[in-house]
Amino acid sequence: MLSFECDYSEGAHEKILHRLFETNMEQLSGYGSDMYCESAKEKIRKACECPDADVYFLVGGTQTNATVIDSVLRKYEGVVAASTGHVSVHEAGAIEFTGHKVLEIDHDCGKISADALKGYLDSFYSDGNREHMVFPGMVYISHPTEYGTLYSKKELQEISDVCHAYKIPLYLDGARLGYGLACGHTDVTLPDVAEFCDVFYIGGTKVGALCGEAVVFTKKNTPKCFMTTVKQHGALLAKGRILGIQFDVLFTDNLYMDISRNAIVMADLLKEAFRGKGYRFYMESPTNQIFIVLDNDKMQRLQEAVSFSYWEKMDENHTVVRFATSWATKEENVRGLIELL
Amino acid sequence: MLSFECDYSEGAHEKILHRLFETNMEQLSGYGSDMYCESAKEKIRKACECPDADVYFLVGGTQTNATVIDSVLRKYEGVVAASTGHVSVHEAGAIEFTGHKVLEIDHDCGKISADALKGYLDSFYSDGNREHMVFPGMVYISHPTEYGTLYSKKELQEISDVCHAYKIPLYLDGARLGYGLACGHTDVTLPDVAEFCDVFYIGGTKVGALCGEAVVFTKKNTPKCFMTTVKQHGALLAKGRILGIQFDVLFTDNLYMDISRNAIVMADLLKEAFRGKGYRFYMESPTNQIFIVLDNDKMQRLQEAVSFSYWEKMDENHTVVRFATSWATKEENVRGLIELL
Amino acid sequence: MLSFECDYSEGAHEKILHRLFETNMEQLSGYGSDMYCESAKEKIRKACECPDADVYFLVGGTQTNATVIDSVLRKYEGVVAASTGHVSVHEAGAIEFTGHKVLEIDHDCGKISADALKGYLDSFYSDGNREHMVFPGMVYISHPTEYGTLYSKKELQEISDVCHAYKIPLYLDGARLGYGLACGHTDVTLPDVAEFCDVFYIGGTKVGALCGEAVVFTKKNTPKCFMTTVKQHGALLAKGRILGIQFDVLFTDNLYMDISRNAIVMADLLKEAFRGKGYRFYMESPTNQIFIVLDNDKMQRLQEAVSFSYWEKMDENHTVVRFATSWATKEENVRGLIELL
Amino acid sequence: MLSFECDYSEGAHEKILHRLFETNMEQLSGYGSDMYCESAKEKIRKACECPDADVYFLVGGTQTNATVIDSVLRKYEGVVAASTGHVSVHEAGAIEFTGHKVLEIDHDCGKISADALKGYLDSFYSDGNREHMVFPGMVYISHPTEYGTLYSKKELQEISDVCHAYKIPLYLDGARLGYGLACGHTDVTLPDVAEFCDVFYIGGTKVGALCGEAVVFTKKNTPKCFMTTVKQHGALLAKGRILGIQFDVLFTDNLYMDISRNAIVMADLLKEAFRGKGYRFYMESPTNQIFIVLDNDKMQRLQEAVSFSYWEKMDENHTVVRFATSWATKEENVRGLIELL
Repeated sequence: MLSFECDYSEGAHEKILHRLFETNMEQLSGYGSDMYCESAKEKIRKACECPDADVYFLVGGTQTNATVIDSVLRKYEGVVAASTGHVSVHEAGAIEFTGHKVLEIDHDCGKISADALKGYLDSFYSDGNREHMVFPGMVYISHPTEYGTLYSKKELQEISDVCHAYKIPLYLDGARLGYGLACGHTDVTLPDVAEFCDVFYIGGTKVGALCGEAVVFTKKNTPKCFMTTVKQHGALLAKGRILGIQFDVLFTDNLYMDISRNAIVMADLLKEAFRGKGYRFYMESPTNQIFIVLDNDKMQRLQEAVSFSYWEKMDENHTVVRFATSWATKEENVRGLIELL
Repeated sequence: MLSFECDYSEGAHEKILHRLFETNMEQLSGYGSDMYCESAKEKIRKACECPDADVYFLVGGTQTNATVIDSVLRKYEGVVAASTGHVSVHEAGAIEFTGHKVLEIDHDCGKISADALKGYLDSFYSDGNREHMVFPGMVYISHPTEYGTLYSKKELQEISDVCHAYKIPLYLDGARLGYGLACGHTDVTLPDVAEFCDVFYIGGTKVGALCGEAVVFTKKNTPKCFMTTVKQHGALLAKGRILGIQFDVLFTDNLYMDISRNAIVMADLLKEAFRGKGYRFYMESPTNQIFIVLDNDKMQRLQEAVSFSYWEKMDENHTVVRFATSWATKEENVRGLIELL
Repeated sequence: MLSFECDYSEGAHEKILHRLFETNMEQLSGYGSDMYCESAKEKIRKACECPDADVYFLVGGTQTNATVIDSVLRKYEGVVAASTGHVSVHEAGAIEFTGHKVLEIDHDCGKISADALKGYLDSFYSDGNREHMVFPGMVYISHPTEYGTLYSKKELQEISDVCHAYKIPLYLDGARLGYGLACGHTDVTLPDVAEFCDVFYIGGTKVGALCGEAVVFTKKNTPKCFMTTVKQHGALLAKGRILGIQFDVLFTDNLYMDISRNAIVMADLLKEAFRGKGYRFYMESPTNQIFIVLDNDKMQRLQEAVSFSYWEKMDENHTVVRFATSWATKEENVRGLIELL
Repeated sequence: MLSFECDYSEGAHEKILHRLFETNMEQLSGYGSDMYCESAKEKIRKACECPDADVYFLVGGTQTNATVIDSVLRKYEGVVAASTGHVSVHEAGAIEFTGHKVLEIDHDCGKISADALKGYLDSFYSDGNREHMVFPGMVYISHPTEYGTLYSKKELQEISDVCHAYKIPLYLDGARLGYGLACGHTDVTLPDVAEFCDVFYIGGTKVGALCGEAVVFTKKNTPKCFMTTVKQHGALLAKGRILGIQFDVLFTDNLYMDISRNAIVMADLLKEAFRGKGYRFYMESPTNQIFIVLDNDKMQRLQEAVSFSYWEKMDENHTVVRFATSWATKEENVRGLIELL
């Protein structure tokens, strides 16, 4: 059975497993204070061209979002996000659990615009009742977004400019950052992300790691006692080495970018086939997620030989489904799927 | 200077102050265990035609919303509300502060519909990823709404039916309930509210009291240890008598309804004048709040002699403003305002 | 039936009720922005000899503690308090509800010492694992304490010095502050409190008001957007006038101190009688609370004619009870009780 | 350099790494729904002799404690724990962060007694003011405790009986459970733990896994929507397989117990040497942690060749330090340390 269900269906890149093996019996200190964490941090700083960056390793995406957002926001502040944002919809209320509102604004294919953001902030600051409202204290975007779409460098810069005009930090959720960076449809690079964002994370879980996300504070703006906040959120891994070693491997010899590229190449191959065979795209998505409208009969037949994700109901007879490629997707499996289409 | 700024600009109905005076030196037990609270509760049960109701007195509206919602919701649940709801916008994130998301749905002039609610709930329960989402655990409406609009009995019943089909309690914020009940434009009565809602509150602060809101659990459904939750929220008044005495007076000889009616009569008089003089209404609002579009020059001239509320900017030259009447509005002041128009 | 059950069994000082009457129909703006609030704040600043103080009015004690503590603490910080402190034991977890730990230290008759505090802080800061612990971010004391005991000026200054050496703000809960200030057994004055504490509150509920506590930030240290935090806590009263008017009266012509003195005079009279008749004191308490050990038979007989509070079980045959006087206690009632003893 | 610093200084048992390798490229569904998780759960149920147990895998200890405790407690409840408990002291306030108080009671070498617990509960339920207090809603113990001490079966049963008499669930933190079970100084078995506790966790992080803790609800008492609560806490691992595979290996062929035993054997060897050489024990601790009082000179000399943990300052000239063995401790290293002593 072929699977295009998600980008976290395999374990880890084998170089990671090898390194875990090699270092396994070394006795290292805990909580991220080991030399592999230090080495990984240094490599990430270099890749970001941000020598002053503070880097921390957390375990998963929702955990990272909740910890970073909560650590940065003042208590009376909320985080502005697209109404389709992961923090808005798919994290079981993890942000609200920390006491903060997600201030939802409109989106276009998962992206917010500098204009919409500015409109929201202008309106907030001109409201005489704003003392009774939640103050916007951070802006959250993801790149790629929930729909796999990407910001251009210009768009990212404009959003960043609006944020900074209002003295609000910009946070970028990079759960699939590698796939965004490896995609030819945007000019945004990792150093751009580091330049325009105040904090962001480089996703490991969906890009070759067993688990792990690397949080980067880019402006000497790490919240005071951040480690204690990480601990308070239950997000401090005793064997921090696991995360350090993984990111150390991923950021050695360009591995992170190389394996990300595989997902894009495979997705492009698959999209071409869908297009060639007249399938209907639900939306254009340039990265590793492909949203297709299937009629329900077709969907059921396909499901017998390949697994993919239900996305949403289109109408009585049609369903939107998602095919995802990843760092681990093999060309033979893509060819196999194309056969089936 | 005339004021139509809000419905809480005076103190309390004088009968309340008299009663506070008369009972002042009686030594009563604290925290709502006194006989005046008991008497007020009994009168409210009768007015609601709900002999089994549990009644509690809290101090203010946001406090009541946060305490009731938090006490009813399970930890992984949120409260469904109109995107314009008071809990969504104007309570400084008090609901999120308790760890719960406000799940915003569309509205029509501040009202939600049974259809929109059902659509939301159907969609939620058919979503295969719902374990990663906030569960809808309560539905919040207000009557009148933020825009002073009202549900009909049929609408209220339909919303109630949807809630109960999904086993979700319905909560009605009655900060201005008196003005809704006293208005001729709806057939909803207090017993209807008690029948269709699982919990609601009868607003005192905006309807003749110094402060105070009466929470009514109608279905023997008071959350366990509710008083402790009230205390935990900082909402337990030591001298509970103050609230008991006020509601005891308000629910004696129909006072609550009688004074509510004054606001409606005064508002109707004022609306007629606005209409007669060709003013533009921002929206039809049948209760004690009147939303008028003023051109900015006119607005400034009016502000010299009368105070009212800025609502929102309409366009460069026009502003939406609100005139509010209340239990305390005097006809001579309305006439005075009409003169000025 | 005589009552010495608590110091909040009557309504309010009659001058307060008179003033509420006189001002009742004035149309005032809401949320504490009225002139009576302003006047009261100015009088409090003068009484504190602290012209720069920021003053806010909240409704009740637990609410005030939770709001002030939460607004001052960073998210990874807790508040240090005596293990018997009101915030530690009798507020239904209102502090923890805001996400903060109460860091309990030892006490002597309800008081903490500068030495114990310093020991705790020294130990914390020398602990290599402190990143995994809750940081002490505030020190909470009450004056009088839960047991009615009082700090001397020297003790208060020493505690303040320790706090400031560690850059930790000192917060004083003054629910019964009047009774502490009016008592001859300490040299602490209101200006001393303002000098040594970073924030404190002057209790109204237990000292002559219907409700209300005046929070005083003494060092230009009001947390940013404090009003929004107050709102978020459900602690912002719409008719702020009620609180302003009450404190305006209490701080006119020394009323607050005068009525506080009554409680002390009455308590002293009663203590003398207890002592004279050989009753056993549970502890020496110089203010308006008297803790007496009664044998259970005696207790039951007394309860037939006078109400007082159960404090705790002493042993099988004895119970600790509390008699409280207040601003409203009449000498005839004290004489009546003395007759009964 | 030898290290006896902690029991999480190596990676994972090599069988675990082998299995991660073997299964690495299998495409599995996420969030713990894969077959390895299912297999591991079944093996744990068998080891616990509790066929109805619900088993969940979380990542780390603090995360597990916060998630389990928060999911079980009602909002007005707190968790009773020894004042030295991990949740009381060393989790950065993670429990309070979820809104719940840790209700600390006295301990003896880290253990609570059924008597102390009963005294606390009796006192709480006889307090007339308990509505103003935090209700005890769970009892937390750890086995081994913070000091490595162990309950006997009788002690565990007595505590369990007290809990159940008060209808309060008993939760056991088993971060080092293997070391407790493998130790000859107690008769408590894993089925005993499952019988007497309502929920507990089997620690992986400190007993041979890279990370991971297995939560076991033993009485068909899993909180509703537990997975959503896990997600809300940021504790739901996308690649749940990592945890499932590890516990599947640990519970195959008795591996968990076998490797736990190594820590005990090594610790016993080391204790004998300490004892033989006249070192002073800070306390008797039967498991894998050894607390020794060193004079400061000696400590500094030792630190040059071996790493261990600072525990606390004893007096000016002496320090309490901790030596920890683990599943990975090699006899040659213990011999090496003994040489040095």
